[in-house]
Amino acid sequence: MAQPKYRLIYFNLRARAEATRLVFAAAGVEYEDVRIPRDKWPDLKPNTPMGQLPVLEVGGVTLCQSMAIARFAAKETGLAGKTALEQAHADMLVDGIDDLRGKQAVIRKASEDRKEQCKKELADFAPDFLGKYEKLCGPHGHLVGDSLTWADLVFYDVMSKVLAVLPGALDGLPRLAKVMDTVTANEGVAAWLAKRPDTPH
Amino acid sequence: MAQPKYRLIYFNLRARAEATRLVFAAAGVEYEDVRIPRDKWPDLKPNTPMGQLPVLEVGGVTLCQSMAIARFAAKETGLAGKTALEQAHADMLVDGIDDLRGKQAVIRKASEDRKEQCKKELADFAPDFLGKYEKLCGPHGHLVGDSLTWADLVFYDVMSKVLAVLPGALDGLPRLAKVMDTVTANEGVAAWLAKRPDTPH
Ligand SMILES: N[C@@H](CCC(=O)N[C@@H](CS)C(=O)NCC(=O)O)C(=O)O
Ligand SMILES: N[C@@H](CCC(=O)N[C@@H](CS)C(=O)NCC(=O)O)C(=O)O
Repeated sequence: MAQPKYRLIYFNLRARAEATRLVFAAAGVEYEDVRIPRDKWPDLKPNTPMGQLPVLEVGGVTLCQSMAIARFAAKETGLAGKTALEQAHADMLVDGIDDLRGKQAVIRKASEDRKEQCKKELADFAPDFLGKYEKLCGPHGHLVGDSLTWADLVFYDVMSKVLAVLPGALDGLPRLAKVMDTVTANEGVAAWLAKRPDTPH
Repeated sequence: MAQPKYRLIYFNLRARAEATRLVFAAAGVEYEDVRIPRDKWPDLKPNTPMGQLPVLEVGGVTLCQSMAIARFAAKETGLAGKTALEQAHADMLVDGIDDLRGKQAVIRKASEDRKEQCKKELADFAPDFLGKYEKLCGPHGHLVGDSLTWADLVFYDVMSKVLAVLPGALDGLPRLAKVMDTVTANEGVAAWLAKRPDTPH
């Protein structure tokens, strides 16, 4: 069998690699999903561009930075947006989601006695943030334009973790709820979700 | 005189708008450089996509998120990179610079008794970080490929602030030093640097 063109290297986690995995899954594009054990990392680290994972190897080139990788994968597979303005829209929505991702990620890292406080901070932050995204979201189950983009996939990835903490977070936000449905209804994504390794985050 | 196609709205600061201003300057493209006073912000805030500045108005659309705006401006003006891989390279270098920007920005925000500590943290962080960028940098005064991209401009913008604190930060890093020279030698950038408003950051 031919080697896939893309080789994504990360730890055995969703975290910063899952956006790219979802892009490849949605597009039905083959890639090598390399998950390295922590004890192999010190050997690999000096050979990565910035000393961090994920990296994507493609055509003899090694890219790093999770969102740069995901955007590249989206461009290669037609999921970046159809016009320059759509692409900029997707970029801005992806960048904005960082704030929500941060508030969510902090819960996992918090010590036991801080966890409840962090959950409360997410619960305080989410309604206003998601209200803005609802207004920016298109009516047909896509954040940008009238078809799937990587912005939907990044949103899905972060939002599914937020929903695990705040199950009602999308109540009263029908456009965003529809984006979640669009993503899980995508055949490639559904197949991936059914088979992806179960990891802590 | 015809209205310029682009309207960039921010506070009277370099901060998160300067990358886009440098892109337009380098490309010699006209835009409206709107700088709103702080007391006008509460009125404008609810009418921005995410309640934050900068925003870029273009063709009836309002974009936010500084790096999404700068990338869009770079694409429109031919400074995003010549191929998909060059564009991804520029994206990854721009994303990576965030870590350096953060360590630098924290100094300004720190209380007087914390400032020296923050400077020390930047001084500890910069050599390793810049060493990596030196290795990733091309030999001819450009971070990516063989011509100017927005990655050079973003690097210049952050690095000029780092150099104000650590004047020797680029000693022994000839490729990165050459990028700084390429940027300041650009005719459009030079004209902009000579006339841009003097602001605290
Ligand atoms: N801004 C980077 C952050 C990458 C990052 O922090 N990677 C972590 C794992 S999530 C890592 O490589 N940690 C190991 C190390 O730094 O040695 C991105 O989005 O890719
Ligand atoms: N991630 C955003 C951050 C934007 C941001 O923090 N903007 C600040 C000014 S630098 C702002 O609008 N502050 C006023 C406010 O939030 O009300 C970007 O890069 O554009």
